[in-house]
Amino acid sequence: MTRYGPMFGPDYTFLGVPACDWQDPATYADAEVVIVGAPFDGGTSHRPGARFGPQVIRGTDYLPHDGSRPHLAMRVDALAGVKDAGDLEVYSGEIQRSCQTIEDAVAFVTANGAIPVILGGDHTVTWPDVTGVARHHGPGKISVIHFDAHADTGDIEFGSLYGHGQPMRRLIESGAVRGDRFLQLGLRGYWPGPDVLDWMADQGMTSFHMSEIVDQGLDAVLDRAFQIALDGCTGVFLSVDIDVCDPGHAPGTGTPEPGGLTARQLLDSVSRICQELPVVGMDIVEVSPPFDHAEITAMLGNRVVLEALSGMARRRHDAGGPRWNRATPLLKDRGTNPTS
Amino acid sequence: MTRYGPMFGPDYTFLGVPACDWQDPATYADAEVVIVGAPFDGGTSHRPGARFGPQVIRGTDYLPHDGSRPHLAMRVDALAGVKDAGDLEVYSGEIQRSCQTIEDAVAFVTANGAIPVILGGDHTVTWPDVTGVARHHGPGKISVIHFDAHADTGDIEFGSLYGHGQPMRRLIESGAVRGDRFLQLGLRGYWPGPDVLDWMADQGMTSFHMSEIVDQGLDAVLDRAFQIALDGCTGVFLSVDIDVCDPGHAPGTGTPEPGGLTARQLLDSVSRICQELPVVGMDIVEVSPPFDHAEITAMLGNRVVLEALSGMARRRHDAGGPRWNRATPLLKDRGTNPTS
Amino acid sequence: MTRYGPMFGPDYTFLGVPACDWQDPATYADAEVVIVGAPFDGGTSHRPGARFGPQVIRGTDYLPHDGSRPHLAMRVDALAGVKDAGDLEVYSGEIQRSCQTIEDAVAFVTANGAIPVILGGDHTVTWPDVTGVARHHGPGKISVIHFDAHADTGDIEFGSLYGHGQPMRRLIESGAVRGDRFLQLGLRGYWPGPDVLDWMADQGMTSFHMSEIVDQGLDAVLDRAFQIALDGCTGVFLSVDIDVCDPGHAPGTGTPEPGGLTARQLLDSVSRICQELPVVGMDIVEVSPPFDHAEITAMLGNRVVLEALSGMARRRHDAGGPRWNRATPLLKDRGTNPTS
Amino acid sequence: MTRYGPMFGPDYTFLGVPACDWQDPATYADAEVVIVGAPFDGGTSHRPGARFGPQVIRGTDYLPHDGSRPHLAMRVDALAGVKDAGDLEVYSGEIQRSCQTIEDAVAFVTANGAIPVILGGDHTVTWPDVTGVARHHGPGKISVIHFDAHADTGDIEFGSLYGHGQPMRRLIESGAVRGDRFLQLGLRGYWPGPDVLDWMADQGMTSFHMSEIVDQGLDAVLDRAFQIALDGCTGVFLSVDIDVCDPGHAPGTGTPEPGGLTARQLLDSVSRICQELPVVGMDIVEVSPPFDHAEITAMLGNRVVLEALSGMARRRHDAGGPRWNRATPLLKDRGTNPTS
Amino acid sequence: MTRYGPMFGPDYTFLGVPACDWQDPATYADAEVVIVGAPFDGGTSHRPGARFGPQVIRGTDYLPHDGSRPHLAMRVDALAGVKDAGDLEVYSGEIQRSCQTIEDAVAFVTANGAIPVILGGDHTVTWPDVTGVARHHGPGKISVIHFDAHADTGDIEFGSLYGHGQPMRRLIESGAVRGDRFLQLGLRGYWPGPDVLDWMADQGMTSFHMSEIVDQGLDAVLDRAFQIALDGCTGVFLSVDIDVCDPGHAPGTGTPEPGGLTARQLLDSVSRICQELPVVGMDIVEVSPPFDHAEITAMLGNRVVLEALSGMARRRHDAGGPRWNRATPLLKDRGTNPTS
Amino acid sequence: MTRYGPMFGPDYTFLGVPACDWQDPATYADAEVVIVGAPFDGGTSHRPGARFGPQVIRGTDYLPHDGSRPHLAMRVDALAGVKDAGDLEVYSGEIQRSCQTIEDAVAFVTANGAIPVILGGDHTVTWPDVTGVARHHGPGKISVIHFDAHADTGDIEFGSLYGHGQPMRRLIESGAVRGDRFLQLGLRGYWPGPDVLDWMADQGMTSFHMSEIVDQGLDAVLDRAFQIALDGCTGVFLSVDIDVCDPGHAPGTGTPEPGGLTARQLLDSVSRICQELPVVGMDIVEVSPPFDHAEITAMLGNRVVLEALSGMARRRHDAGGPRWNRATPLLKDRGTNPTS
Repeated sequence: MTRYGPMFGPDYTFLGVPACDWQDPATYADAEVVIVGAPFDGGTSHRPGARFGPQVIRGTDYLPHDGSRPHLAMRVDALAGVKDAGDLEVYSGEIQRSCQTIEDAVAFVTANGAIPVILGGDHTVTWPDVTGVARHHGPGKISVIHFDAHADTGDIEFGSLYGHGQPMRRLIESGAVRGDRFLQLGLRGYWPGPDVLDWMADQGMTSFHMSEIVDQGLDAVLDRAFQIALDGCTGVFLSVDIDVCDPGHAPGTGTPEPGGLTARQLLDSVSRICQELPVVGMDIVEVSPPFDHAEITAMLGNRVVLEALSGMARRRHDAGGPRWNRATPLLKDRGTNPTS
Repeated sequence: MTRYGPMFGPDYTFLGVPACDWQDPATYADAEVVIVGAPFDGGTSHRPGARFGPQVIRGTDYLPHDGSRPHLAMRVDALAGVKDAGDLEVYSGEIQRSCQTIEDAVAFVTANGAIPVILGGDHTVTWPDVTGVARHHGPGKISVIHFDAHADTGDIEFGSLYGHGQPMRRLIESGAVRGDRFLQLGLRGYWPGPDVLDWMADQGMTSFHMSEIVDQGLDAVLDRAFQIALDGCTGVFLSVDIDVCDPGHAPGTGTPEPGGLTARQLLDSVSRICQELPVVGMDIVEVSPPFDHAEITAMLGNRVVLEALSGMARRRHDAGGPRWNRATPLLKDRGTNPTS
Repeated sequence: MTRYGPMFGPDYTFLGVPACDWQDPATYADAEVVIVGAPFDGGTSHRPGARFGPQVIRGTDYLPHDGSRPHLAMRVDALAGVKDAGDLEVYSGEIQRSCQTIEDAVAFVTANGAIPVILGGDHTVTWPDVTGVARHHGPGKISVIHFDAHADTGDIEFGSLYGHGQPMRRLIESGAVRGDRFLQLGLRGYWPGPDVLDWMADQGMTSFHMSEIVDQGLDAVLDRAFQIALDGCTGVFLSVDIDVCDPGHAPGTGTPEPGGLTARQLLDSVSRICQELPVVGMDIVEVSPPFDHAEITAMLGNRVVLEALSGMARRRHDAGGPRWNRATPLLKDRGTNPTS
Repeated sequence: MTRYGPMFGPDYTFLGVPACDWQDPATYADAEVVIVGAPFDGGTSHRPGARFGPQVIRGTDYLPHDGSRPHLAMRVDALAGVKDAGDLEVYSGEIQRSCQTIEDAVAFVTANGAIPVILGGDHTVTWPDVTGVARHHGPGKISVIHFDAHADTGDIEFGSLYGHGQPMRRLIESGAVRGDRFLQLGLRGYWPGPDVLDWMADQGMTSFHMSEIVDQGLDAVLDRAFQIALDGCTGVFLSVDIDVCDPGHAPGTGTPEPGGLTARQLLDSVSRICQELPVVGMDIVEVSPPFDHAEITAMLGNRVVLEALSGMARRRHDAGGPRWNRATPLLKDRGTNPTS
Repeated sequence: MTRYGPMFGPDYTFLGVPACDWQDPATYADAEVVIVGAPFDGGTSHRPGARFGPQVIRGTDYLPHDGSRPHLAMRVDALAGVKDAGDLEVYSGEIQRSCQTIEDAVAFVTANGAIPVILGGDHTVTWPDVTGVARHHGPGKISVIHFDAHADTGDIEFGSLYGHGQPMRRLIESGAVRGDRFLQLGLRGYWPGPDVLDWMADQGMTSFHMSEIVDQGLDAVLDRAFQIALDGCTGVFLSVDIDVCDPGHAPGTGTPEPGGLTARQLLDSVSRICQELPVVGMDIVEVSPPFDHAEITAMLGNRVVLEALSGMARRRHDAGGPRWNRATPLLKDRGTNPTS
Repeated sequence: MTRYGPMFGPDYTFLGVPACDWQDPATYADAEVVIVGAPFDGGTSHRPGARFGPQVIRGTDYLPHDGSRPHLAMRVDALAGVKDAGDLEVYSGEIQRSCQTIEDAVAFVTANGAIPVILGGDHTVTWPDVTGVARHHGPGKISVIHFDAHADTGDIEFGSLYGHGQPMRRLIESGAVRGDRFLQLGLRGYWPGPDVLDWMADQGMTSFHMSEIVDQGLDAVLDRAFQIALDGCTGVFLSVDIDVCDPGHAPGTGTPEPGGLTARQLLDSVSRICQELPVVGMDIVEVSPPFDHAEITAMLGNRVVLEALSGMARRRHDAGGPRWNRATPLLKDRGTNPTS
């Protein structure tokens, strides 16, 4: 196997799922999902450290790392059908080479039938992540649901076209994603400026500011987003920047912006999306361990992945039938639960 | 006096209340509540440190440690009628001996007419805490309201029947508590597995998952719990695992699980329970100072105790009459406030 | 210029706005707002460190410190018309001299036509802050909206009339502010005692306890406060103690009290107040960097100031016309947005 | 008893020694040493927090707080004959009143026959500490041995004569201590400037810079200091600023200066001084818990006190006879050890 | 393979060496050294957390975890011939069962020809570690060199014979090790008391207090220790408690005692011992990650193991010939270096 | 002025020295030294964060930031003749462009007669730093004295020729510096491997391992280094990687290696070098604030620069005459001190 393994620290997989080699499709022929680490933080404009994101998202859990995680309420095993390809060899000092490596790997995994779940890394990686997925599904054919405090639609920063503030612009400019199928939730703060906001409006983007989410309610906003996402697209890419959560819930990140979602809100949203929509790829980015405390951000990153995987698993289980309902009492109606 | 005193660090009482000796009932003949420290964390499956819980729950407050805490809104002194028996001599390496010591002390205090409030320690201590109370009130006669991210109904862990993941199972198996009078709030995450959930359902337990609480509203869930708790039981034991709160609000704990209650929700719930129900015992567990930041978890643990004591005091004050209402403006209707 | 500059660390202004000298009105003739640092924490009853508040509130932001901050949703530049006078020379060991220095500076700035925004320091500074503003507007002519976990209406503490627990009492006693135009939001915990609460009621103060805010809803409570604030007063002073937020959102403070507002709630409230009311002065206090983690409290302090400045700017822009509405989609109706 | 008790947090004594009341000499008639807390940090020029010094110096130890500490090598009980008077009521905002309180207490304790050991607080307190002792022994009759990174001989700082940068100047100016009997060890860095150094030289002070200590060896420097200290003085006051140690050994302090002593060097020096010289008073200052990590500075402060007390105890034991020798093997010659 | 794997967190080996199963000697037939994790901290008297010691000692290094570590100066690969058996299943709440598990594993590995290197865990584990080795070599046939701030020769603590303060007493009492072949370096502080010191002297122990090490020089003390260690014994067990280092160098430990060795001194000592003496077993204990900062203690623990392994490797290489000399310039005399 | 200003955070200069623009020589015509920030950490192989090095090295000091720092013992003003050009615009994601920017700036400043003192950034920057200086002085004409735990002579890492592990190799390969005039102090640990060590030996490098420094004494090693450095070279470049110090003294760095120099040793060495040798350029690298505690590493970085500047200033003052001697008592012989 030519698997690169871990870029930093010891070699282990996401909570103990089987390892695979992304270059050898036979190693993940039976997998629904392939996890890929993209430990790149050379595109960060402020506090770096997201390079250690894959390491801690994979390894932060107080339960046995045994490759199995039955969801308490959904009664499905989040890790069934999941394999981990380890990290890609990226290098903070060389952003274009690193992005190419990521794009190629994501495209290859997608083409071989697995849903890629990429562990960042800073948000730069969403450019190659989505591009890689779009190479398979076709330009404009997948919508993006993007949780973030920031729009990440900047043009040139620090003299470069590439970085964690620009991936969404590059994706729309290249045609990989249609601007009017780009959905953002959780924006707030003081960036970007009016010219960029105008560009975003011109693309037809839909961006929900936190004050609008407070005003309308999160579920209502998600409902609207879902309608747009499925209009003319065959799949959805989910990109979660951990800084969409309030810094109190996710201090371990590079550009924290006060006033965000709670962890509960993010977990519930991710769960809904992966149950209700045809997710064809996902990334979780900007978990930066050097700024974390007591591993709470790392743990949240891990749980975002697990909720997503649980949602996907439940969607597969419920295919065509009634969906799991979060109002269902935990210990009732066990007959309808897949694992009981 | 044979009082053991503190297991770790200097000897002081909860916010300066008078000391007593649990083995000498005369020292707490006039007390409504006796605080007991159970600095045991040998049953922790992951991050230890809850042994320092009693020390910090007793001592973390910016106000004078003068044995008096008038509640701002309820207008009662939380600490009137409260004494502190210090710590019990427990030892992390010997779990069964430690549990026996706790059970005996709690049973003795209860038998002598005081409500025991036990400061843990890890959740292992709820097994002897509730058993001790039940020795006085009779098996199956007290219900349990249990705030936690975890069900703690495991069977054998690390080769042992005893630990912080199993107390609720031991309590139901021994008959100390009826399974259908066991109420859990705040569960989430990926533990325990389906077999244990089935066992729980078979016992008739009622366990509210966080997503159900979000869906139904916390007050509605509490209303349902209160109905069950009072059905055929003469008292309620309140067990608060601090990890029921989101790690952003309570990072200082051993097995943090993202997506929990806010501190406000927990405080309001504890206050309601102790005002509206006949609480006969309480514990607060899993406050682990080594993982805390700026003492915020320690402070929350302290406030959970104070809100509970305030609720009990107000309940005594209002006995038979109208209850305090949180909608009451703080500075109005002073005529009806006990302390003004 | 006789500008004192910074009391601690390097000399820089709030996010790069132009410097001015408070003693030289010509240097801020064109300013709407003058920022003044009051790095005094000698009045703190518990954890000190708020002396470093001005330094971190000015300097904590991941964006370029270029003196410009267009608000994402309100479409105004928060920093247009803002200058920074640096710190005042205060000294923790000499509280009365320090307060006199602050009062004189604030009064002078106000008399010269600018709105003072004071960066504390501990809450002691609100006594000279509001007194200084009231010297210009007249006694009893400005109301105070006060966000805090604590009433700060103590009489004598540690043998002194002056300190961070007493400013509101001094202000009402001196006649600078009418008691019945003093509005408090977010109170909770166990201080002050019944006698002080009675004194507060006697003054006609309106103090919203957190449980009342939960019960009634934050917007409803603000609506009630706004009605009182504008009754017979010509201006409003906004005083924000960062500890009004839950310690999970603002650990970096001296006397954290669990169960507070979320950061989102505070930011939305400040924004509403500065848009809807004629704010004539503001302070932000009790940000204590030594107890912060990953700069999340510092960042929140910075954003409280920016939301306030944005609200003021939008109020100036909308003068007489329709106000910005937080339900407005971020990328729609650009024609009505001032900066696009 | 009118004992004030603790200023911050719970009430307990230094490692469990008996409490006394400094205003009631009968309560310490049998004591050799009386410990007094001076939790004042209003004189700090930079990072505050030393107000919590007394609390952590008294309480940081992993051994039982039982009022007994036999020294491993010296074979004396450091705590025999030691009582703790609790804290004095000082207030950060009022430096002169606070200093007067301290001076009066120290003078009174000294006049009543006990050696005062003062737990700071910032270095401001050495001014009243030494003045208080000198009121009994007579002006110019006690020498001072002062461990510090800084000379603390400033004149006016922040517009005040009083603060933690000026106590040594005030002591020499007042005549309490002769400049040529003032001995300083560990100075380094960039303060004070040449004019103050000239003033120091004019007073005949002897100040050992760290580079001189490295060059000559610590024991040789101590030998020279001892000769001066005993020339015409009847007693020695030992003042230890914890920042004399390298920040790696003592990060929890207000003005850390790299390149200092190791903890071992400080402990050995304190031990030698208290064994070989007639110490009549001592203080330990500038332990600032908010900046500490894992309590290592607090623990060092505790051990500085214990080494001093052990040295004094051994000096009393060896009175007139041969002194303990650190080259003595730990488990040999037990016949000559007092406690075996 | 029945290998238990990791007790906490992901499964990986010490810096990537091959895994083995201690119960299956064939898996380490070719190994010189077998690493065994003993993640037990139920015997800690104060700050727990050493259960995470094996995890961080194995995994903390910024270099690739590739199973190879050529020593810069000694020119041998520290990891040649090293395998890692993972953790043993121990449980903090059950100390006797856990110790028996450890003793059996260590004895079995020793009997099968490998040198066991045990990663603790608290110091309790040295009792089964040395007992296990002595079961093979014979009672009294191995000497112990013990680096520690504490003698660990207590009798009963917290009502138990077993714990991290008593292993050395149990080993001498059982006859596993002769008291006069027990060598301790680095003792300091205030424990144990005179009676225990007398017991130690009666056993003929040699315990070097830090002040004696300062006085005599570390190399001289080591020379004396080596002479005793080889007198009538066929092997040496090296037990390193990380708290022998000063808390400034090793804050991440349970019972830090100021005034210890530097990291450099410990590394040099370990290197000398493993080169110059026939080491037949080793443990490294009391690394407690919850109290560490920036992984410096974890890294030191890792380097203690590597220096020991390098010393052993160089000893094998130099067998019978001239030894490596630390005065040798790094880049000279390459002809005599084994790896060049 | 086209000065770029700060890359991160507010704009201020090193302790308040005057600002200059490196592209405009007139702005530093009178300067001896020009400080240049190189906030680049894209070449880090492990923990990033050194991008914030310039910010904290410039701004971490408890004294007034007034552009003046008289050295206590040397009696010269370290900051006389020093200006600060701010940061260069570098970008972590683009290493070659960033290095070119640095090289050009350093070369230009050198050509214009000032000594460049570069604040890193990771050690990558030493490649352009020294290359830039060598462009002026000529290839092979300046020697390098390099303090570091690591040799930084790797060839290709993460697929790149450029990074913080390779600058010294690039400098020797390009001919900028002769291998036999490259002097390294403080090496330790397990990198690089034998092949790279052989390459280093082939170049004639002199690399002092920590064990050799312990064995020979630091001053003796420096004496040997000085002899080589001045043999045929006209100037010396001093490169200080803060990780040459032990992690206990400098935890805030990317690749900490236990067993290093003390802070005192580093400060004394830097002082000697800058007094005794013709230093023509200097950099200080690898200060990584995210991993620092209580700013102790930042402060050490600041002091390394100040000791260097003080040494240079004293060298200019003593030109041709007797040198300052660290054995000189601090308050004696003031006649010979330049500033008294």
